Amino acid sequence: MTETTSPALDVALAYYRAWTSRDLEKAMSYIADGIVCDAPAGRLEGAGAYRNFMAPFVQMLTGSTLIAAFGDDTTAVVVYDTETVPVKSAPGAECVTVTDGKITYSRFIFDRLPFEAARKAAT
Amino acid sequence: MTETTSPALDVALAYYRAWTSRDLEKAMSYIADGIVCDAPAGRLEGAGAYRNFMAPFVQMLTGSTLIAAFGDDTTAVVVYDTETVPVKSAPGAECVTVTDGKITYSRFIFDRLPFEAARKAAT
Repeated sequence: MTETTSPALDVALAYYRAWTSRDLEKAMSYIADGIVCDAPAGRLEGAGAYRNFMAPFVQMLTGSTLIAAFGDDTTAVVVYDTETVPVKSAPGAECVTVTDGKITYSRFIFDRLPFEAARKAAT
Repeated sequence: MTETTSPALDVALAYYRAWTSRDLEKAMSYIADGIVCDAPAGRLEGAGAYRNFMAPFVQMLTGSTLIAAFGDDTTAVVVYDTETVPVKSAPGAECVTVTDGKITYSRFIFDRLPFEAARKAAT
């Protein structure tokens, strides 16, 4: 695991540690009210929409391994591999902008295909 | 765009600039013969397999924007948004290990779902 420290990375890692501990309340404390998140399915705007996006994912999370984390004053990138109930290895990358200690923008990258396949197999 | 410099990042960015210029030969000059790449569809082993994976993607590439790039002595992360013929916005993240100026390991993250949808729509 590669890890540096920076103001933005501190927040991104605190956020990462919270949601991977399945502590959605604590995770949301690092998310700005007006967050904009460009996720695979499209743009999410506002903390409420972001919470609705994260809640079901955190519910099915069984583990996560941090692969790399870098940052500077305003931007951080966190790369990890999650283990979830439907998908055993679901790596993701988040590139976040941090302002005043909160994540104001997130570019969220992961592969939806195995989740879609699991969903279809279950129905 | 956030960008730092480091030995690993220099190689990762030279590789990125080559393939986003659709110069597959130059891109492959930064790839170690024994590369291991964990891509969404599974593990690729060796430069030949990696070239076969990249060639069709480079063929359909119409543009790319670098979102963030960070690195240290051995590891770099590059996040970008590509524009391709079938998918207008296809962001990706690559976390690479660099040894002796070549990429020896890559964790490659992108969403296969829109490519799968475009493939199905075309057939």
